[in-house]
Amino acid sequence: MAHNPRPALEHPQLGVVPVTAVMHALSDETRLAIVHTLLAEPTGRACGTFPVDVAPSTLSHHFKVLREAGLIHQEDRGTQRWTMLRAPELDARFPGLLAAVIAAPELSTDPS
Amino acid sequence: MAHNPRPALEHPQLGVVPVTAVMHALSDETRLAIVHTLLAEPTGRACGTFPVDVAPSTLSHHFKVLREAGLIHQEDRGTQRWTMLRAPELDARFPGLLAAVIAAPELSTDPS
Repeated sequence: MAHNPRPALEHPQLGVVPVTAVMHALSDETRLAIVHTLLAEPTGRACGTFPVDVAPSTLSHHFKVLREAGLIHQEDRGTQRWTMLRAPELDARFPGLLAAVIAAPELSTDPS
Repeated sequence: MAHNPRPALEHPQLGVVPVTAVMHALSDETRLAIVHTLLAEPTGRACGTFPVDVAPSTLSHHFKVLREAGLIHQEDRGTQRWTMLRAPELDARFPGLLAAVIAAPELSTDPS
């Protein structure tokens, strides 16, 4: 009998995400660290390998906020959940935004 | 006897405002409308003349959030409180950020 998969994750079209939701998603240190990390890894990263010091349930919440704001794409690959930044789409809808946020002086250290 | 002035407003140095606080300040429609309006008026604007449809107490709260995040400067001129965007300072600390946020499609209508 087939393994029962986790429900598919929903990803909004970026065209319908309000800029306020994107700003809210970027208003948290842990979420900015995730974005910063992913910006350096276009092929994505497995959950559990992010250099952030929060409980798994908290991290899961942060991924949800980022996903619902259209900032990240997540998919399950076997037992791993894989996370990618939707950088090209974000740059198309909000040109320069990610670069401007990530250039903030306090984020200039290498996140890896 | 001298008129008792309102207490001086405090304005943080932009160098000590975390980028997360700036993002939070920009994560609200009314506050984005205020920023958008001020971007077009470098000499500032008197309170009560902003094209936003919220109660005065709510507007006052929004100005406080923007002021404490270093986005606006406010000063009292007679009976008027005058508000200016700290655009040059913001551009120096977060190059391109304001322009990227304000370019969001849903903010592209003329706010005046």
